[in-house]
Amino acid sequence: MSEPCFDIAHLAHVELLTNKFEQSLDFFTRVFGLTITEQDAQSAYLRAFDDYEHHSLKLTRSHTTGVAHIAYRATSEVALQRRVNAIEESRFKTLGWIEPGIGHGRAFRFEDPFDHVFEIYFDTVKYRPPETEKPKLKNIAQRYHGRGASPRRIDHLNLLAADVSEFQSFMETCLGSRVTEMIQLDNGRLGGCWFTVNNKTYDLACTEEHGGGNGRFHHVTYAVDQREDILRAADIFLENDVHIETGPHKHAIQGTFFLYVWEPAGNRVELANAGARLILAPDWQPIVWTEADRKKGQAWGLKTIETFHTHGTPPMKKEQ
Amino acid sequence: MSEPCFDIAHLAHVELLTNKFEQSLDFFTRVFGLTITEQDAQSAYLRAFDDYEHHSLKLTRSHTTGVAHIAYRATSEVALQRRVNAIEESRFKTLGWIEPGIGHGRAFRFEDPFDHVFEIYFDTVKYRPPETEKPKLKNIAQRYHGRGASPRRIDHLNLLAADVSEFQSFMETCLGSRVTEMIQLDNGRLGGCWFTVNNKTYDLACTEEHGGGNGRFHHVTYAVDQREDILRAADIFLENDVHIETGPHKHAIQGTFFLYVWEPAGNRVELANAGARLILAPDWQPIVWTEADRKKGQAWGLKTIETFHTHGTPPMKKEQ
Amino acid sequence: MSEPCFDIAHLAHVELLTNKFEQSLDFFTRVFGLTITEQDAQSAYLRAFDDYEHHSLKLTRSHTTGVAHIAYRATSEVALQRRVNAIEESRFKTLGWIEPGIGHGRAFRFEDPFDHVFEIYFDTVKYRPPETEKPKLKNIAQRYHGRGASPRRIDHLNLLAADVSEFQSFMETCLGSRVTEMIQLDNGRLGGCWFTVNNKTYDLACTEEHGGGNGRFHHVTYAVDQREDILRAADIFLENDVHIETGPHKHAIQGTFFLYVWEPAGNRVELANAGARLILAPDWQPIVWTEADRKKGQAWGLKTIETFHTHGTPPMKKEQ
Amino acid sequence: MSEPCFDIAHLAHVELLTNKFEQSLDFFTRVFGLTITEQDAQSAYLRAFDDYEHHSLKLTRSHTTGVAHIAYRATSEVALQRRVNAIEESRFKTLGWIEPGIGHGRAFRFEDPFDHVFEIYFDTVKYRPPETEKPKLKNIAQRYHGRGASPRRIDHLNLLAADVSEFQSFMETCLGSRVTEMIQLDNGRLGGCWFTVNNKTYDLACTEEHGGGNGRFHHVTYAVDQREDILRAADIFLENDVHIETGPHKHAIQGTFFLYVWEPAGNRVELANAGARLILAPDWQPIVWTEADRKKGQAWGLKTIETFHTHGTPPMKKEQ
Repeated sequence: MSEPCFDIAHLAHVELLTNKFEQSLDFFTRVFGLTITEQDAQSAYLRAFDDYEHHSLKLTRSHTTGVAHIAYRATSEVALQRRVNAIEESRFKTLGWIEPGIGHGRAFRFEDPFDHVFEIYFDTVKYRPPETEKPKLKNIAQRYHGRGASPRRIDHLNLLAADVSEFQSFMETCLGSRVTEMIQLDNGRLGGCWFTVNNKTYDLACTEEHGGGNGRFHHVTYAVDQREDILRAADIFLENDVHIETGPHKHAIQGTFFLYVWEPAGNRVELANAGARLILAPDWQPIVWTEADRKKGQAWGLKTIETFHTHGTPPMKKEQ
Repeated sequence: MSEPCFDIAHLAHVELLTNKFEQSLDFFTRVFGLTITEQDAQSAYLRAFDDYEHHSLKLTRSHTTGVAHIAYRATSEVALQRRVNAIEESRFKTLGWIEPGIGHGRAFRFEDPFDHVFEIYFDTVKYRPPETEKPKLKNIAQRYHGRGASPRRIDHLNLLAADVSEFQSFMETCLGSRVTEMIQLDNGRLGGCWFTVNNKTYDLACTEEHGGGNGRFHHVTYAVDQREDILRAADIFLENDVHIETGPHKHAIQGTFFLYVWEPAGNRVELANAGARLILAPDWQPIVWTEADRKKGQAWGLKTIETFHTHGTPPMKKEQ
Repeated sequence: MSEPCFDIAHLAHVELLTNKFEQSLDFFTRVFGLTITEQDAQSAYLRAFDDYEHHSLKLTRSHTTGVAHIAYRATSEVALQRRVNAIEESRFKTLGWIEPGIGHGRAFRFEDPFDHVFEIYFDTVKYRPPETEKPKLKNIAQRYHGRGASPRRIDHLNLLAADVSEFQSFMETCLGSRVTEMIQLDNGRLGGCWFTVNNKTYDLACTEEHGGGNGRFHHVTYAVDQREDILRAADIFLENDVHIETGPHKHAIQGTFFLYVWEPAGNRVELANAGARLILAPDWQPIVWTEADRKKGQAWGLKTIETFHTHGTPPMKKEQ
Repeated sequence: MSEPCFDIAHLAHVELLTNKFEQSLDFFTRVFGLTITEQDAQSAYLRAFDDYEHHSLKLTRSHTTGVAHIAYRATSEVALQRRVNAIEESRFKTLGWIEPGIGHGRAFRFEDPFDHVFEIYFDTVKYRPPETEKPKLKNIAQRYHGRGASPRRIDHLNLLAADVSEFQSFMETCLGSRVTEMIQLDNGRLGGCWFTVNNKTYDLACTEEHGGGNGRFHHVTYAVDQREDILRAADIFLENDVHIETGPHKHAIQGTFFLYVWEPAGNRVELANAGARLILAPDWQPIVWTEADRKKGQAWGLKTIETFHTHGTPPMKKEQ
């Protein structure tokens, strides 16, 4: 009777704000290894070597940091319209259609209850590599350049919300996302929730906001092909004075191998590798982690570092 | 208007025939690292440590080798019925429903034009690990035992067909599969075709039968988390007198890191790692490889070994 | 004028005491992946798959834990005698020759000022694999069995001493060891010292005893071929209820990738990978790390866990 | 009685000739990942990031290709003089002392019977990184830059000789090298011989010249820390139009993981990883491989590619 929703194809891009634009752009290109597709006065449009669209990261000059908007691509125009209808019929706030812009066609914008702006679209601009970026193998979007950490593709992002259950309702209603794993706190509240719209183990995570902020951002993650790419990246970050917050280690939740750093403006960025793990079961039952589980630390015992619970962007005043 | 089909969730299991049952079973458990869920007089039901269903490989005693049937799981009962309707309305041969059996509920069987038997079902038996196999992390199906090559999950299989275009038509019609990559021969025929029903880059490949056989099997593949797991497995295969046919190397097509061996009865088995590569674009355009492309060998230049073009199971008389 | 000393070839074996013999032996064989060469009522003689001698670990039943003796092999009989002469002429305590025993010929025993017993010998028993353990490639000592963590060879050990400078004098005088790296404390004392007799970056480390003990042992380390072997081992330790103390991470000192666990009786055991790093310079100048350096944590920022500074074997009463 | 010789510390550098200097230099710096220490009209002096001396590769403009000289560093001035005496007393050709030059002090030159020029020296110039190349960890020679394949250090070279036994005699007499592995042909001749002066499994290999040349060069090899670095480098070579000759695969002889490419002028260059394998036994007995052994191919069955037996530099006329 009830069928899984397949209207949304995948997380498409994230717009990050930076108050240190030049340093952030240098980090994302030279050290992290993304490539600029296009740039205007306000923003640079970046992507990993196998991201097939025009960009997966829009980096925008600002007086602050954090996330400006999050975009998902629909599986078709028909599916897009179904989602728009569902959102408009819901209790969540809509912002209406925006005109086609750099990198994709018209998009429908809406907000979660914590002021994060989302958009969905189908019509897109696929990346066409210039001659110097053409790959030798025609099944990757761009040549493997090996510059910096050189991740393959955008993987997921993590947002902070004062009420994770409410955020879950938003994701299920508006995007048709499925919950793959969650943290159930002893006080009955959800501590975190991991969502996916496809076979990836997650494309968005939401964890509880502890700093009293609103619309805050925790991190964005790019996927590398091998765990060794993360170990190698750790040396690159070390040599380039990038703040390594925690890792490399393996998450207990989702089992992903991870490394967290802060880009120069303070936005947290992760490199991750999920191995061959996918959510293939159409009737996957969410994995529920308790506080007792969480006290064991990460998969191999690493204790979660304090800043991981407190630092988000933009930072709260007390953190600054 | 036209929307991608999401009726089928994933490749579920493959039934392999062996005329050396004990040796084959020893290989698949002790050396390859699968685990037996259940066994009866005729068959052993096996799975990789993170396969969530009762089995992904049914190994059956026989006077011959090759594949007995291929099973896919539907995304819902409704989707299953849609597929059955589509198959029944097609020109392809149906075999009707089979009763619930070991590992899953009722299934609908049908055939491709080259006598390979397929089945689809939704109702399944999820793996429940006995006490000794319970994982320390609750998000994997079974503990990581580290025995033999210990792959994570079934990945794909490869069948031989005299007419790959006809096989393509079968896959699109019956399973709603999408073509992700293909080989276009100079003579206008398709040399091979790679299919998927989800975000995996492929779950089934079909390559041209050169030996005059029918219903033949080329290989079944399990996915490991890292390329290093494949290099390590190569040493394990070497030490256990397993015939290593070719690899480790990287496929040009699909970019997968691979290693091919023959299990004791002669069925070809692959270990593979796709890194973080997924097909996320809902409107992915098939990559077309020409004969000229293929002449360059695999990604890093390895020439495809002759037996790869000739050996299938059951073997043709001339090969025996 | 002064030439480097080449009298000692390499660290040969370590004798560990355990008050939980059966559990320790199960750990070292099934989980850690060593192989028993021989066993008598008191001890089991174990080695890694490519250790070329009879044993690199002697595991001995005892009422306590810690190290019973440490053995190095000389480069020749002549070199052995030179070392014995040097030791006898020194101020360090000699225990004299012991008769040929299990695994090697006569050995000369002596003590460091902190009651750790050392021995040196040249005449040895090389491992001869039984039929079932013969490798397919004749240049490794034993087949690659892939059981548990399956390290390749013994790498180094770490001892605790109340006066690291005094220990340094002992190592230089008795073994002709070179210092490759050291920790210089702000109070003028040495906090730790890393020694080698060959091209390995170190075969023995000595760190300051903070618990008031004497003759205590910090850890013994085996080398794996790849960092991925350590990540894989972490999952094996997790699944087998082995206490993972810290890691995997990369040491700042020596740059080694590491993972520390406690075997069931409490002796600390490390898996390590040094990559291609060797000390090839015959006039290598010791690297000196300050307290300020150490405060940065390990290479990628991991803070050293408290127990690493306090736990040794046998444990001090306050720790028990 | 007889003691191993420790007069020579390690392979120090190789001088390669190129008739495509600019292309070769671009390859070695941008793609292979070496760094230029110094450059003059005739030569560029290059090193890997953890080579501690001024250079490990001298790349010299020429009308041809191949090796101009091979340098080893002695363990002390005294040891150097012992070697010089031994060489002068031998039947091998001496070229006398050369004055201190770029990168090291005075060196003694001599020739093998096949016209390869060797030199030994002790006094050296250690690499002092400029500010931009200073590492964050003080125990590596230069920062880990991650550019191109970025190997850690020079590993070994391979020369061709019409009579490998005669070459063996040269190496034992002049350098005090030990043989670790060898190929014994059915015709009684040596097919190849692997030598070391320290704990590395080999620093020089000599294989039989099949093309009738003299003084020819087969390849020079740099070591990377992990096998994954080699897989990653394969993609970099592919994307940069570098001719990949064979690999990645594992050698049966010495068990090294390898990848062979040709730099633009045709000199063969290898990346290799030996894992944790070292020759620690002071009385190591050479491993002898027969023709029957060799027919099995490399460790995992790869057949040696034809050019590997025929291509050397400078090429023979028939090859050109």
